[in-house]
Order: sequence, then structure tokens, then C-alpha cells
Amino acid sequence: MQRRGLLIILSSPSGAGKSTLARRLMEWDPALSFSVSATTRPPRPGEVDGQHYHFKTREAFVSLVDSGGMLEHAEVFGNYYGSPKAPVEAAMEAGRDTLFDIDWQGGQQVRNSSLGKDVVSIFVLPPSIAELDARLRKRAQDSDAVIAGRMARSRDEISHWAEYDYVLVNDDLDATAEALITIIRAERMRRDRQPWLNDFVRALNAEFSARQTGDRT
Amino acid sequence: MQRRGLLIILSSPSGAGKSTLARRLMEWDPALSFSVSATTRPPRPGEVDGQHYHFKTREAFVSLVDSGGMLEHAEVFGNYYGSPKAPVEAAMEAGRDTLFDIDWQGGQQVRNSSLGKDVVSIFVLPPSIAELDARLRKRAQDSDAVIAGRMARSRDEISHWAEYDYVLVNDDLDATAEALITIIRAERMRRDRQPWLNDFVRALNAEFSARQTGDRT
Repeated sequence: MQRRGLLIILSSPSGAGKSTLARRLMEWDPALSFSVSATTRPPRPGEVDGQHYHFKTREAFVSLVDSGGMLEHAEVFGNYYGSPKAPVEAAMEAGRDTLFDIDWQGGQQVRNSSLGKDVVSIFVLPPSIAELDARLRKRAQDSDAVIAGRMARSRDEISHWAEYDYVLVNDDLDATAEALITIIRAERMRRDRQPWLNDFVRALNAEFSARQTGDRT
Repeated sequence: MQRRGLLIILSSPSGAGKSTLARRLMEWDPALSFSVSATTRPPRPGEVDGQHYHFKTREAFVSLVDSGGMLEHAEVFGNYYGSPKAPVEAAMEAGRDTLFDIDWQGGQQVRNSSLGKDVVSIFVLPPSIAELDARLRKRAQDSDAVIAGRMARSRDEISHWAEYDYVLVNDDLDATAEALITIIRAERMRRDRQPWLNDFVRALNAEFSARQTGDRT
């Protein structure tokens, strides 16, 4: 009864609740594999290699890209970020889904990759920009200039909403988390993600044939 | 916040629980519009015109087909059956989904119709042929010959399972009903079924612009 693993892409502007939603998904299904990004930016205090990011030198990163080992990558604020391919393929082999917390550039590349048909992409919108701004200010000790930069990036991110399969407005965290879970549950049930059905229907046909033979005797 | 109405196609061999599942769906969402088929076969005792079927003369049926008024139609055992288009379009206009309890021939035609992109199709399989046979025998006073005919038709129906978006094995009615509801809830959330999102994102962008203007003064 093993099904194909999904690539679940969750994108949103910063402050729309994406990280919390990703955590809710992981709590709901601990078998989900979270795609840890690789990056060339230096670790911040408290960040653990392999958990928050795979920290890499620029040379190591580029060499992984060149050998086809990155599902997607992009340069943001002068640093490289990317999703290593190997853990995703390992999870898929095991029938496990992978959750990607990536931006629209990454989303586009994963959708256009060889694993594109296994992608389910979800974009999370804030209920309003005032709300987005409030969440960013509450969270951060950052200066107005940094926040203004994030807002500009948010606007750019939101402009890509129409590239996603599903779009959720996060005006209630519990409701949005539940909607997310409903989407994943349904997507897992799609026929093309259930290769075991081929054998199941073959068995039904064998049963039909056996009965017809039986009728004749 | 009005969304596009879906065309929900539910198909299965006779005896796999399709009618019960359709009823469960209607109980879950009484706003669902059930597509009542038109037919040229004469009413059986107790059948109500407009409720069980729209009973039509062969001439009236053919004339409706010729004028493009049928979403799908087919001849089964010498009688015509079809799905009138007008009630489906009326439901879609109102943002309501329509549930079709039709076979693979009807499913193919609706999928290939002008409304095809709003179709969600679900095939229900029995857990085994022995189970299918038992359900048919329990239900009916029919002769072995009639049941054998139904089984042949069931095999033909099952052979089209791979044309559907979702395939469910109905080994537990409650679980299957819940799976069906999950599928419909998720499909309603797809971006292309939420035309109001265009206005919503336009409003977010206006908010961004207003803030930038505000920053400058």
C-alpha cells in the first residue's frame, strides 16, 4: 500500500505564519521529512549545522549545483540558498513526503524539476499588510530600514501567488493549519500517487476471472 | 468570497457503496446540487419524476441532446440516460457544487465537455469481488442471470478506474465517506477555484503602495 512521496512547497511572505504552519504540519505527521536548505551564509549564533541549515562554503555549494545535486537554488542578499536533492529522493523512495519552506524562486525551480509532477504547492497570504507589518515588528529587534527591506521582499513574494496550486489566507492560525492538513490528506489520495492500486485492481480482475470459470463448471 | 462550483463525479461498479456515499456527501453539505439524470426508460413503481429521474420520451431526449442541452448521455440496455446541462450551469453560477452519480461513459464525456476543468472525479472500488457479489445479492431479489449481467458490467466499469483523479477502496463506509469529504474540501481550496483571490491580492498591493507613499511624506 505504499504511495509516492509528495514534495510539499509552502511559500509566503515573511510574517504570514509560514514557519508556524510548517511546524504544525510536522506535529501532525512526524513522518514528514523537512527539507533543510543549504546556504553559503555564515551561521548565526545558536544555528546548528544540518538542523537549521547545511552550512557550506561557496565552492562546495557551487560544486553541488554543478553535479545536479540541488533541486533548486538562488542567490539572496549575496548568499546562496538551495535544496539538496538526495534527502528528497530518499524520502520519496520510502513513500514519505518532504516539506519545503522556500520562496517563489525555489518553488518555480522545484516545479520545473524532474520531480515536478509530485509537487503540491501552497501559498500563504496574510489577511492584510498592516497585519504582516505588525507581526514583523513584534518579532524583530530590527530597524525600520530592515523592516522596509523585508516589506519590499514580501511584496515581490506575494506577486507570485498565482503560480501555486492552493492559496490560503492566514487570518486564523488553527483554521489555516487545518486547511493545510486537509490539502495534504487529499493530495495523498490522488490516484497517480497510489501505485499499489495497479496490483489491487489486477487482483480484482483475477477474482472476476476465477468466478466466471467457476460459473462454467 | 464566492468560489467556482465543482462538478463532482462519483463512479463505481454497482454494489460498491456509491449511492450511500453520495447520500453521505449530501448530508455533509446540503448545498450540494445533485444532478438528476434524464432517461427514456419508463418509471418503476415508486419513482418520482424530477427526483429519481427526469423521465422523457425518446423524442424529447434526442432533441435535448441535439440542442446541446446534455452534458453527457449514453445508451444502456436499450434506454438513453443523460445529465441535463442547465441545472449544472445554474449551480455553478451560484458557486454551488454538483454531484454526479454516473458511470465511466458519462464521466468521460463530462471531463471532455466545456466544463471539464471544473471536474473532480472519484472512483470507488469494492474491497473484493466476493464483497461486491455479496452486496448485490443481499440487496436484490434479482435472479442469478441478472446478477451475472451486473457483474459483467461491474468488471467493465472497474476497467476504467485509471481515468479518475482519485480512487478510494470502500472497505469501511465511514472512513471512505470521510475521505470523500476531505477530497471535496481540499478541491474547493484550489487557487483556480477562488476567483475572489484576484481582488484580495489587488487590495494587498494597494495597501503596500499606500504605505510606501506614507513613508515618503
